[in-house]
Amino acid sequence: MRLATLDNGTPDGALAVVSGDGERVLEIGAPAPTLIALMEDWDGGLAAVQSALVRLEAGEGAAPDKFCAPMPRSWQWLDGSAFDTHGKLMQIAFGLDPIETDRPLMYQGMSDRFYGPTDDISFISEEDGIDFEGEFGVIVDAVPMGTSATDALRHIRLIVQINDWSLRAIAPIEMKTGFGWVQAKPACSAAPFAVTPDELGEDWRDGRVCLDLNIRWNGEQFGKANGREMAFGFHELVAHAARTRDLVAGTIIGSGTVSNAAYAEVGSSCISERRAIEMIERENASTMFMSFGDEIEMRALSATRDEPFGRIRQRVVAR
Amino acid sequence: MRLATLDNGTPDGALAVVSGDGERVLEIGAPAPTLIALMEDWDGGLAAVQSALVRLEAGEGAAPDKFCAPMPRSWQWLDGSAFDTHGKLMQIAFGLDPIETDRPLMYQGMSDRFYGPTDDISFISEEDGIDFEGEFGVIVDAVPMGTSATDALRHIRLIVQINDWSLRAIAPIEMKTGFGWVQAKPACSAAPFAVTPDELGEDWRDGRVCLDLNIRWNGEQFGKANGREMAFGFHELVAHAARTRDLVAGTIIGSGTVSNAAYAEVGSSCISERRAIEMIERENASTMFMSFGDEIEMRALSATRDEPFGRIRQRVVAR
Repeated sequence: MRLATLDNGTPDGALAVVSGDGERVLEIGAPAPTLIALMEDWDGGLAAVQSALVRLEAGEGAAPDKFCAPMPRSWQWLDGSAFDTHGKLMQIAFGLDPIETDRPLMYQGMSDRFYGPTDDISFISEEDGIDFEGEFGVIVDAVPMGTSATDALRHIRLIVQINDWSLRAIAPIEMKTGFGWVQAKPACSAAPFAVTPDELGEDWRDGRVCLDLNIRWNGEQFGKANGREMAFGFHELVAHAARTRDLVAGTIIGSGTVSNAAYAEVGSSCISERRAIEMIERENASTMFMSFGDEIEMRALSATRDEPFGRIRQRVVAR
Repeated sequence: MRLATLDNGTPDGALAVVSGDGERVLEIGAPAPTLIALMEDWDGGLAAVQSALVRLEAGEGAAPDKFCAPMPRSWQWLDGSAFDTHGKLMQIAFGLDPIETDRPLMYQGMSDRFYGPTDDISFISEEDGIDFEGEFGVIVDAVPMGTSATDALRHIRLIVQINDWSLRAIAPIEMKTGFGWVQAKPACSAAPFAVTPDELGEDWRDGRVCLDLNIRWNGEQFGKANGREMAFGFHELVAHAARTRDLVAGTIIGSGTVSNAAYAEVGSSCISERRAIEMIERENASTMFMSFGDEIEMRALSATRDEPFGRIRQRVVAR
């Protein structure tokens, strides 16, 4: 099944089920009025979700007015960097030494706001190097400290598609301190639909979203990297995060920028990677970062359903 | 005035005013039932807070049953590292090169849970290098992106005292990746009282808490470093955090471990610092990290009021 959150003027919005064609929605209401409430008691809310689905399929519901992110705010957002090709290219882009580690890479990011799929995204300055990062992510229920990767798989309730906005003029400066990113990582955006793993069928394998992430920047094709090349599956990222803390219900865990070894064929999911490839091939980067007015579109493509997560399509504007 | 949160079985607890002697409390109720609600509408809640204070001083209220952290969970926790002496000693402790930057150091930490002042703190393994970090922190109302340091001062509504639990066997491994800390930084603890800046009088100067932080480990004096030596004031840390994001109401910003150049006289606010000092003086560290059963006590000392934030006193236990 697919869930979405409708903008009703409250911070957490109203949770709704989504029709097979993505054209109609129906609010679920109590005991699952919001996605955060459902994550806190998945089993307790499931009957209401399924009942709403039955009513939606029987003809209730309507075209949505405006989607928020599936979870417009969460208590926790932990973003991995699980694609080796992305890591290698970013070290070139940032002019830093390779990271030597056999552990998953992960940072804690801003979780109090996730932009909806069609929201304008405002920044103070183009000079900060505005970049997108196309990712997949998972939402877990409460995960106890010390949970194994095998057990973590059962806590992955929903899968989402994310644009992790990044400011590249600041990122390497913050990274060099070892403290991770604060200024370089403002709020992310999310595609409208959160989907259960079974909804993806064979495209959810080994804790990986084996789908192409199709990205268009100002209407031009930019990338279609596939999510299958994660060095660690999402279940391993969840276990890594839960090694020394209980994960609060509704924690969102990101894959990091989707990236493939065959980047020459499939392109990239962020501008920095393309710039790194230009540096490798031509010794200097010619692609500039985003300007105010630019538009970004991201959608995963599936053989069985065109766009399982719906579509991010939004514009960068001056604050 | 001083505020506290009482354990009423809900995730955010019940907000209360605290008597001058810290012995009695009175719940505030609507429109400020929780601290997070008050931070979202400080001006709208202030009359109710002041009315509760009047009733408390007139004899209403009772001895508290159990304190939570002033804000048991927040949408955002950003911890600085504003004491130069701490930074220098930690690079020695971690065996890393000095961080070369003229910017404030800051990372995003886990915000979905802050332990109360007397909660037992459970960890999976002593091998992870369990350490405390005594800090001060501030809680802000909503801070718009791009707010200056001067304007940020007005957004600092409350000051708190924090123990930032840290796992030292993991910290340098995570730090070397540049991604900041996830496993090395589990949930923090907080002293019971959040105080308004005016409550500290002359001890709140230049956006700094100019008080000694007295720390006892297993009943033995460990440190009494003063908060005045921050290289950046809290208003500058707030402005740094708000450079590229709106800060959500209730964001907590930490000072990092309180540390003084005169560490030989005043001691330290974490074990790692003492170990670094031992390395400098005797070429190897003899003080071990914490064991299960250890007790830590932290209290700021003021000339006008013994313990403005109350006291953290808690035990480390096996998970």
